[in-house]
Amino acid sequence: MGLFTKDIKTMDDLFLHTLQDIYYAENQILKNLPKMIEKVTNRELSGGLKNHLEETKKQVERLEQVFEKLGEKPKATDCPAMDGIIKEADEIAGNVADKEVLDAAIIAAAQAVEHYEITRYGTLIAWAEALGHDEVVRLLTTNLNEEKAADKKLTTVAERKGVNQKAAS
Amino acid sequence: MGLFTKDIKTMDDLFLHTLQDIYYAENQILKNLPKMIEKVTNRELSGGLKNHLEETKKQVERLEQVFEKLGEKPKATDCPAMDGIIKEADEIAGNVADKEVLDAAIIAAAQAVEHYEITRYGTLIAWAEALGHDEVVRLLTTNLNEEKAADKKLTTVAERKGVNQKAAS
Repeated sequence: MGLFTKDIKTMDDLFLHTLQDIYYAENQILKNLPKMIEKVTNRELSGGLKNHLEETKKQVERLEQVFEKLGEKPKATDCPAMDGIIKEADEIAGNVADKEVLDAAIIAAAQAVEHYEITRYGTLIAWAEALGHDEVVRLLTTNLNEEKAADKKLTTVAERKGVNQKAAS
Repeated sequence: MGLFTKDIKTMDDLFLHTLQDIYYAENQILKNLPKMIEKVTNRELSGGLKNHLEETKKQVERLEQVFEKLGEKPKATDCPAMDGIIKEADEIAGNVADKEVLDAAIIAAAQAVEHYEITRYGTLIAWAEALGHDEVVRLLTTNLNEEKAADKKLTTVAERKGVNQKAAS
């Protein structure tokens, strides 16, 4: 994006910019999630995050299909929001002394990531509908549903699988 | 947080740190939302955001009550995630040439803010439950419900009040 020109003139421009934003975000997750998984103690949490890493690879492919359907090349644009979320996750993970408390902190960080993706996919789907990009809606909805399921799974691991209780005891 | 010591040893420490994080985030919203409201064209959107600004003031007060109940002084800790979300909102708002497209972009930015708060309050409530802080759960749940309602209102303005359609036409 230029610093002195207003590059976004139409909803198509805004859609493409936001698509490039989530493409950057998903790729940052692919890069950073393995480091986070190494720090996990709880096996259910570790398994859930590994599973989501595999899902994320397919989500990136779906985003590439979206670019293709729009006649564009896949491209990432800087996403200060995801950079900030990941920076915060790294800082907190580096500051926690207890293994079980660290698991709780990692769940919180992963849910912040999921919620960022949920909001971006929700927005992109609404815009794709307004723009009449039906096939794009379908691809993005698959990604959105996976993010929502991943978020719920994390809540289950935190609450029902006892991560929070172990950390608090 | 110290750079060379692991300051977070217990769930109480992690809870307090995350409380300081959302306290910082809410205060950043108080500071930045008025600038965003000035850029809005759609009256429903502008009214909704002004209403949420008033809500946010009360949310900050509720957070101060939470600190008090824990025997702590209200304190903010840096929150790179919220800084990133706000930076991204500013960048995109500065890059959009068309007024109606700008409204759609502002809704997206505001929903990213709401989702960050939703995830943080969800986490804090789960931790407060595990720690047995019942009154704190009540205060945080009020904030969470307001954020969820604000997010839904933004979706309504975008989809049913025609912001997206106007921007796309």
